[in-house]
Amino acid sequence: MTGSSIYTLREIAERFGGEIVGDAEVRVRRVGTLESAGAETLAFLANERYLRQLETTRAAAVIVDPGARAATGLPRIVCENPHVYYARVARLFHPARAARPGIDPHAAVHAQAHVDPSAEIGPCAVVGAGARIGAGTIVGAAAYVGEGALIGRDVHLHARVTICESCVIGDRVEIHPGAVIGADGFGLAFDEGRWIKIPQTGRVVIGDDVEIGANTTVDRGAIDDTIIEEGVKLDNLIQIGHNVRIGAHTAIAACTGIAGSTHIGRYCRIAGGVGIIGHLRIADHVEITAGTGISKSIEAPGVYSGAYPFGTNREWRKNAAQLRHLAELVRRVRELEARINKTSGSPS
Amino acid sequence: MTGSSIYTLREIAERFGGEIVGDAEVRVRRVGTLESAGAETLAFLANERYLRQLETTRAAAVIVDPGARAATGLPRIVCENPHVYYARVARLFHPARAARPGIDPHAAVHAQAHVDPSAEIGPCAVVGAGARIGAGTIVGAAAYVGEGALIGRDVHLHARVTICESCVIGDRVEIHPGAVIGADGFGLAFDEGRWIKIPQTGRVVIGDDVEIGANTTVDRGAIDDTIIEEGVKLDNLIQIGHNVRIGAHTAIAACTGIAGSTHIGRYCRIAGGVGIIGHLRIADHVEITAGTGISKSIEAPGVYSGAYPFGTNREWRKNAAQLRHLAELVRRVRELEARINKTSGSPS
Amino acid sequence: MTGSSIYTLREIAERFGGEIVGDAEVRVRRVGTLESAGAETLAFLANERYLRQLETTRAAAVIVDPGARAATGLPRIVCENPHVYYARVARLFHPARAARPGIDPHAAVHAQAHVDPSAEIGPCAVVGAGARIGAGTIVGAAAYVGEGALIGRDVHLHARVTICESCVIGDRVEIHPGAVIGADGFGLAFDEGRWIKIPQTGRVVIGDDVEIGANTTVDRGAIDDTIIEEGVKLDNLIQIGHNVRIGAHTAIAACTGIAGSTHIGRYCRIAGGVGIIGHLRIADHVEITAGTGISKSIEAPGVYSGAYPFGTNREWRKNAAQLRHLAELVRRVRELEARINKTSGSPS
Repeated sequence: MTGSSIYTLREIAERFGGEIVGDAEVRVRRVGTLESAGAETLAFLANERYLRQLETTRAAAVIVDPGARAATGLPRIVCENPHVYYARVARLFHPARAARPGIDPHAAVHAQAHVDPSAEIGPCAVVGAGARIGAGTIVGAAAYVGEGALIGRDVHLHARVTICESCVIGDRVEIHPGAVIGADGFGLAFDEGRWIKIPQTGRVVIGDDVEIGANTTVDRGAIDDTIIEEGVKLDNLIQIGHNVRIGAHTAIAACTGIAGSTHIGRYCRIAGGVGIIGHLRIADHVEITAGTGISKSIEAPGVYSGAYPFGTNREWRKNAAQLRHLAELVRRVRELEARINKTSGSPS
Repeated sequence: MTGSSIYTLREIAERFGGEIVGDAEVRVRRVGTLESAGAETLAFLANERYLRQLETTRAAAVIVDPGARAATGLPRIVCENPHVYYARVARLFHPARAARPGIDPHAAVHAQAHVDPSAEIGPCAVVGAGARIGAGTIVGAAAYVGEGALIGRDVHLHARVTICESCVIGDRVEIHPGAVIGADGFGLAFDEGRWIKIPQTGRVVIGDDVEIGANTTVDRGAIDDTIIEEGVKLDNLIQIGHNVRIGAHTAIAACTGIAGSTHIGRYCRIAGGVGIIGHLRIADHVEITAGTGISKSIEAPGVYSGAYPFGTNREWRKNAAQLRHLAELVRRVRELEARINKTSGSPS
Repeated sequence: MTGSSIYTLREIAERFGGEIVGDAEVRVRRVGTLESAGAETLAFLANERYLRQLETTRAAAVIVDPGARAATGLPRIVCENPHVYYARVARLFHPARAARPGIDPHAAVHAQAHVDPSAEIGPCAVVGAGARIGAGTIVGAAAYVGEGALIGRDVHLHARVTICESCVIGDRVEIHPGAVIGADGFGLAFDEGRWIKIPQTGRVVIGDDVEIGANTTVDRGAIDDTIIEEGVKLDNLIQIGHNVRIGAHTAIAACTGIAGSTHIGRYCRIAGGVGIIGHLRIADHVEITAGTGISKSIEAPGVYSGAYPFGTNREWRKNAAQLRHLAELVRRVRELEARINKTSGSPS
């Protein structure tokens, strides 16, 4: 997947800024990591842990931050945020795939669906009655758009995505294979020894510039809608329960689950394997580290954690066994304190 | 998704019981939450945390329990379980979609499959040789029913569901998009530096009135069958290993995994993000809270828990570091106790 | 799914070794568990916990290890590893399904794809331009093979598998329904209040004899490739982040997530529900028990753990509350030690 265009460092800096140190006429035709870069490759240093690779890289040039300005003799672009800079250069070499307008003969598009002429409908894709597919949008192979669903402009539904009926997808949204948007929430009432299903009649409404990972599930609302605001980024295998709201520009890593009716703030960063129970409120700018379970609302920005510290099985067995008696240990310490106070007077 | 029918409170109470307080002739045409309800909407109070919304709701009428009978002046239906009552009224306004009999021209139904004439086979659905699809059943778009699978009556397989060969699905089962029923279990034997696959020759057998969530996976048995008994409700992204048995009317929330050969009792309630290792027995009426790992069998009904209590990252770092030395701390406390006993005599 | 062939114990031992004790002419036509075995069934004892079932089984013969040689009077095959032996016999009765060469009329194979004449392309499968499908390979119903993807020989892609563009799949690989190989990794850079997507231009490269479970996701690399080496076995609902490398013959159970750029060694065994953060190195021959979160690299072989010990909710509430004050408790114990040392002199 190497792009075919060639740029000099000067041309790149003219587009994206930054200061060139060294030969500005060096030509590059791809981006690469320090470790694997070959000829004509522009690499980048975004993480100090890879600093030593600067010495051995075969890259033609590198992107570095001001702190690493003197760390290499290679031609370089010095900029505030090499990771962002690299993202822009990588997009220059690898532009997003454009829609190839038209409906594949193996697709099944309902006569009452509306597909913009500039949209692409892939083979074995299904578009239901009343659905609308916006301009420049790609509905991938074997993707499914249910009845009455509204898909915006320049959206990319990859292969085998499911958008259930009546859901609303904004512009420039990208959804990866196997994701399911708008399946019924887990709404049940227990009555005389049996579960009764509660009809799930809300929708999922997804804002602009959202990205949703492979096999992630976002349930439709029970009555009101489940809402994913603009710019939210969801990784793979995430579960979003019914009537959850995710605030704008929040990013959530893989294997995290958020139970029903919880509202997450804007600009949160939630790591992988996190679980958040239902009916909570999480403030804006909250960061939650990997594997943490959140059992009550968080009202203040900050970093929150709660993973069990791993160790060798031998050590863990000893400590975990005592954890079952921690409250008893606290009682014993309290008693010791009382006795020593009686013996020797109050502590200084 | 608003229903088109209109009912008076009197008509609703005639169907479902309850006592009307206030104007019985109020007309409603939809259900709603207290917060978002508008005109002609019947709302409900099922959770005390939303009690204050009773004061500001614009609902035309509400469903409340006897304890909240006097908490509002709106026309109301007083009943023992507003959540169940609401479920019934919601179904009245939103009846389940009926099958539209026939096989879509884009479906691939094998000549040796048997599809009841009243069943619906959606576009790009695939039905294999020897499979049977019961009366009134919907096989959604791009769903797959493998060879020899038996699907009961009035089943709803949503879009992109997979039912692997020879599996058996009861009546009135609902399975959501992306779920995979009957893939091979994780059966391996280690032999001379390599894993050998153990053929997975059992089936998955699912009872009546089961519901299975989006992208959930239920593995087929290694030799005997994996069994999901009647009335079980599984949420999204759940893993059920081979030869697991889930007892009737048990409900399991999202992101939970149950390893092979474990048997779960009847009427259990298992929250999200729970992990249960293999070869265990969990009694009937066991409740497990979110994020708990179950590492041995549970013989008595009750509520079981085991999640790490989260906090700020700063506090967590301090406490988690000490957790690695808990057994040592216990030893130090024991030594203190011995020394103070020697110093001051036995404790009173 | 009973095989149609019949073998005597003698014939089986001639193929697979082992010592026959009792009647070598007993005929068997299927394998079974001790508990459910009926006539003409060969059962096996692979786990001491099922030893008592030897007394009541109705199996015609059993496979046992030397330690259980005298535990039954049934005709038996004594061998070192009954589990491996059973795997081989089960495969004898249940050979893997062979490809039925040809392209289903409901499949959509691009004119520039290359499908070996001995391969099978199922109904509603999609094969993109430039993709290659090797000899004897099965592309299941509604599976998707993206542009330029290379699929080896004797591969089995089950129904609804997704292989994204340019990915490479070795020989004899088996991938179960709903798995997604090669979706974009979660590559983002934060710039002025918005996330910028980093083009994910690497591939996924999967070695020979790998098995991947249902709805598992393996992300493509950001620049370099994500690599799954030969003989790796992945269960269901696993997340493998971009640029992860999994060493040969490592097995990973369901619901585990491995974040980006982490390298896992060879011959590791990782249980279910494990989370491993990004950019780590895990040595060869590491075993990680269920529900453990790994937050730093592991350099030595061994068994590692870190799950919270569950208990009744009542006990857990007491202990977990104190866990939030563990560092404070340690301080109190230290103070007690200092005071008692002052009171009674240094400890012996």
